[in-house]
Amino acid sequence: MSTEEIAALQAELEAQLASQRATIDELWLVVSAINILGLQLGFAMLETGVARAKNTKSILLKNLADMSLGVFVWLVIGFGLYVGDGRFVSGAPHDGFMLLNDEDYALFAQSYGFAITGTTIMSGAVLSRMKFEWYILISCIFVGLVYPVSAHWAWAENGFLSVDFDYKDYAGSGVVHMIGGVYGLVGAWVCGPRVGRFVQQGFDTKSVPRPLPGHSSTLQVMGVFLLTVSWMFFNAGSSGGTNPEQMRSASRALAASMIALSTSCGVVIIIMYIKDRTHHLAEACNAVLAGLVAITGPCGHVDPWGAAVIGAGAGVVYLCVSHVMLHRLHIDDPVDAFAVHGACGAFGVIMLGILDYQDGLVYAGSLDLLYGQFVGFICLFMWALITALILFVSLNRIFGISLDEDDQLLGLDVKYHEGYAYPEFSAQDVMEYNRTR
Amino acid sequence: MSTEEIAALQAELEAQLASQRATIDELWLVVSAINILGLQLGFAMLETGVARAKNTKSILLKNLADMSLGVFVWLVIGFGLYVGDGRFVSGAPHDGFMLLNDEDYALFAQSYGFAITGTTIMSGAVLSRMKFEWYILISCIFVGLVYPVSAHWAWAENGFLSVDFDYKDYAGSGVVHMIGGVYGLVGAWVCGPRVGRFVQQGFDTKSVPRPLPGHSSTLQVMGVFLLTVSWMFFNAGSSGGTNPEQMRSASRALAASMIALSTSCGVVIIIMYIKDRTHHLAEACNAVLAGLVAITGPCGHVDPWGAAVIGAGAGVVYLCVSHVMLHRLHIDDPVDAFAVHGACGAFGVIMLGILDYQDGLVYAGSLDLLYGQFVGFICLFMWALITALILFVSLNRIFGISLDEDDQLLGLDVKYHEGYAYPEFSAQDVMEYNRTR
Amino acid sequence: MSTEEIAALQAELEAQLASQRATIDELWLVVSAINILGLQLGFAMLETGVARAKNTKSILLKNLADMSLGVFVWLVIGFGLYVGDGRFVSGAPHDGFMLLNDEDYALFAQSYGFAITGTTIMSGAVLSRMKFEWYILISCIFVGLVYPVSAHWAWAENGFLSVDFDYKDYAGSGVVHMIGGVYGLVGAWVCGPRVGRFVQQGFDTKSVPRPLPGHSSTLQVMGVFLLTVSWMFFNAGSSGGTNPEQMRSASRALAASMIALSTSCGVVIIIMYIKDRTHHLAEACNAVLAGLVAITGPCGHVDPWGAAVIGAGAGVVYLCVSHVMLHRLHIDDPVDAFAVHGACGAFGVIMLGILDYQDGLVYAGSLDLLYGQFVGFICLFMWALITALILFVSLNRIFGISLDEDDQLLGLDVKYHEGYAYPEFSAQDVMEYNRTR
Repeated sequence: MSTEEIAALQAELEAQLASQRATIDELWLVVSAINILGLQLGFAMLETGVARAKNTKSILLKNLADMSLGVFVWLVIGFGLYVGDGRFVSGAPHDGFMLLNDEDYALFAQSYGFAITGTTIMSGAVLSRMKFEWYILISCIFVGLVYPVSAHWAWAENGFLSVDFDYKDYAGSGVVHMIGGVYGLVGAWVCGPRVGRFVQQGFDTKSVPRPLPGHSSTLQVMGVFLLTVSWMFFNAGSSGGTNPEQMRSASRALAASMIALSTSCGVVIIIMYIKDRTHHLAEACNAVLAGLVAITGPCGHVDPWGAAVIGAGAGVVYLCVSHVMLHRLHIDDPVDAFAVHGACGAFGVIMLGILDYQDGLVYAGSLDLLYGQFVGFICLFMWALITALILFVSLNRIFGISLDEDDQLLGLDVKYHEGYAYPEFSAQDVMEYNRTR
Repeated sequence: MSTEEIAALQAELEAQLASQRATIDELWLVVSAINILGLQLGFAMLETGVARAKNTKSILLKNLADMSLGVFVWLVIGFGLYVGDGRFVSGAPHDGFMLLNDEDYALFAQSYGFAITGTTIMSGAVLSRMKFEWYILISCIFVGLVYPVSAHWAWAENGFLSVDFDYKDYAGSGVVHMIGGVYGLVGAWVCGPRVGRFVQQGFDTKSVPRPLPGHSSTLQVMGVFLLTVSWMFFNAGSSGGTNPEQMRSASRALAASMIALSTSCGVVIIIMYIKDRTHHLAEACNAVLAGLVAITGPCGHVDPWGAAVIGAGAGVVYLCVSHVMLHRLHIDDPVDAFAVHGACGAFGVIMLGILDYQDGLVYAGSLDLLYGQFVGFICLFMWALITALILFVSLNRIFGISLDEDDQLLGLDVKYHEGYAYPEFSAQDVMEYNRTR
Repeated sequence: MSTEEIAALQAELEAQLASQRATIDELWLVVSAINILGLQLGFAMLETGVARAKNTKSILLKNLADMSLGVFVWLVIGFGLYVGDGRFVSGAPHDGFMLLNDEDYALFAQSYGFAITGTTIMSGAVLSRMKFEWYILISCIFVGLVYPVSAHWAWAENGFLSVDFDYKDYAGSGVVHMIGGVYGLVGAWVCGPRVGRFVQQGFDTKSVPRPLPGHSSTLQVMGVFLLTVSWMFFNAGSSGGTNPEQMRSASRALAASMIALSTSCGVVIIIMYIKDRTHHLAEACNAVLAGLVAITGPCGHVDPWGAAVIGAGAGVVYLCVSHVMLHRLHIDDPVDAFAVHGACGAFGVIMLGILDYQDGLVYAGSLDLLYGQFVGFICLFMWALITALILFVSLNRIFGISLDEDDQLLGLDVKYHEGYAYPEFSAQDVMEYNRTR
């Protein structure tokens, strides 16, 4: 056998190995892309459970419609803006815009799961008082224009945050959750509190929040469990491939995610018990999510003990921000979308600069990564805040996006969606009760 | 090192590569087989939500029992009929009938998920008015005899549709959904409408349908989301392996499925809004499923834009067929099983002949594929229709498979399953209400 | 090309192949680890559905908190005890205790899913009458100390059951389910029956059980479906790798699991119909789980027909043990945790000794394996029983872990968790009803 023949065979085998690796990469992308879609169910159940029964169909339709319609928007414009080699956005027209290249199919599906997660986060903050059409419009703009830009900055080949500032965000504490949370904040502020959420008290007419319990704790917790499972695919699936190093980082992301939700939940249960001597279910639910949000960015880059610290911190951040939102700013955010996704997302972005197991402040003794993370945080936060303010405020001024008090009392389902979601369990007295709070 | 030694080493490496590929194939089959089982939960929740609360346990038990018992039927007879190298069915007795060959285990599990999906589709069409025993009997016959034949025609090595007519059906628009939908049609027709579904109106005693809202929109939407996720494994998992080409077709199937559900849902929301100036949740749910059904067959063979067209068309087909069923034929199909699975399944089979990105009419300018698809549609449709008519009509004549009016008013749960599914929420007035409609 | 160069290239290719194999192993571990977490949702829904509505939040919080907090306990102590090379437990201090080794990340995540399953099984048996703090304490001790020891015995490199007795337990009929079931038994016995579960009848004041139907059959069945899907990953994912033989055993495990749940469900439906002439949903649900529990240990080691026998046997075992527990021992186990997980787990362990397709009594004609299985059963059972008795009895004597009658009647949610889970559906008469039974 001649040297050339041997070399040719070698090359052939190496090509096969590489092709097999590419196959496994694609398999992993497909499996995680599909499972990430499960987040949509999780959010839908969580939000429905937190809301009053009279708004159930409205919430479900919003979540179903944004998931469905979002795919088309992502196909037509969003995906094209996200990929491509521009500095700030897309760059020259390319195949991504028409999804002409079959190499992009798996990435299209997976990245869509990320895009739609951001808008779904917002939907919880505005639930039961925003009109369907405007929600869908803002959701489509988010998926088509807002998210692709932020994802491009951080994750595209030449995105300025990743290239110029070495900004790291494994699965999107900043890119996905923080900007979704900021949209939630602005949405909740523009739509105003739900009727009956605050009562005027005392001579100085101080606004005091009143509890508005949702109609099903079971749905809320079901949502959290569903989110937990899908989220693991969200985080581990962001390994970008399956070579040994990438696969190891996927395992790291998985372990870190589990640890962070654990410490976050533990810290919140303990704090709430010390404060109230009782066990709060809703806060425990949000704590799990807060830990997951904060670890989403760092998950592939931190040690188990770093993950434990980030989770514990996220629990505290969530409780503090939620308290400030409700008691100081008097913003009614029914699912704590900003406290959980916005604030803990930002927290995760910053903490990665400190606890990255290679370049973090604690490990490398250098501020370089922390600086990049801080720049990333500022850029992404401001991008989200400014676009959200423009969108929500202008639409509200011009068209009025929120429901008036009477419609809120009646409930969106009867007003817009042909009747109650649970017609057999809405006896006359329940309907009366609906009208009175 | 001698030439022989080198050649031996090469051969060894190539064998290892092939074995690794086979491993990945089996892994993909196992992962998708497991996730496809999730469809059962999705259908169960969807059907339960669409029905009255008084029939909840009946529906749940039907879905649990058909999934469970079906495995045994598939083991004893169905799988053996499906595989094998006969032209029209199985052929000579072979190992498949006893599952003697451990190479078949993964395929057994995955193909079972397909078989049971067909029968579950039917269960929605006959809900709340068919007796448990007869439903289980027909379900077992479907899994053991009806489905295996149709699957053999289209997918077995020597199946006449695939060999003689080049019939294509990636994941079963025709093989699975259409025949399930036809069984639903016949079942709904034989069982008759639910009590109170149609009222006689006017001098000419025209039958006018009355809405019978289900007891939980939340369960209905939960079902749709669960189905969406599992369906992606259904479609992408039909790649038949993981070599680069197959894996690419899995990605294509995934992207196409997402796009089709999107355009279908969008089209239906817009049409319904134009028609009624309101946003219908139930129709949006069915639209998502209609898009998925229609793309199930073409998903691995069409471009993104072809998928968008098929999805949009499926939305229209669903609305039209559902209207005709209810208002012209006066058949009460509570979950629109025929409109969604039967009609859109047929639509997908035909559209693949037009939009296949290699051989479709639009791309190749040839009618060959369309002809094969049409033959496949006719054969599968007639096979399902004829066997369904024989089964349902003869059983109904001889034994009576549907419930009488009093039992329907009382509800199946109290009649057959030891009481209500939600005993704490069935106050006296609710029970009264049950009896009166 | 010199011989050395060729040899070097060969070695390089082989190393790449091995690395690729390792990658696929890790991928399979990650995918199954994530999906196994879905069991937590399944158990939570099942238990919630079986309980009265007034205890909903209590059950949900227990399940959410044990999943969350358990991760930290597993990180700090449990995982370290489980791995390591000691005979009876852990051995010398090693990296596992601090999860210092990034090779352990995926295994950490997957094995955690097993650990937490055991404790979740117990939670169903004590539902609605055990105080939150003590439940969490026992759960943490179980995850941190009890389970790791039993898992070490059976699965660690030098565990004495596996090394000295060739004990086999593919996915843990004995190691996971049986010990969880035993904890459930002891917990249910120590906590006593729910108020109203038994009534005194006749002169000899015989205790007669009264049905206490749960508040939602839908949640119960949803739990069973969710468990079924996740369980397949639990079983198939225990292949320990993806070389051709291991992957084949994963397929075998999947097919066997499906077959066992089928025959178990079939047998129970038939027996119950013969006995009562009615179709019981709750028993069918438990039958599916009983079949899955019994096959969990044997699943990778039996033929399809062995799986069918084990499943059918498990159905009978479940019915008998459940009957004895309720009617003879008067122990109130609301979810039949012992009958399903304890008894059928033990049954699976023993049956593997008989039906193992290589070494089982029926195939090999030797009692060796059966002897090992019997020793394993005794050791694991006694370990669980003794530790459970010490824990539950001593805690109950010293602190009192169960709720008094008034609090049970009021419901845990109002007492400890700030109000009802479904506040809109708890009309005054429902609240009254709560107080009276």
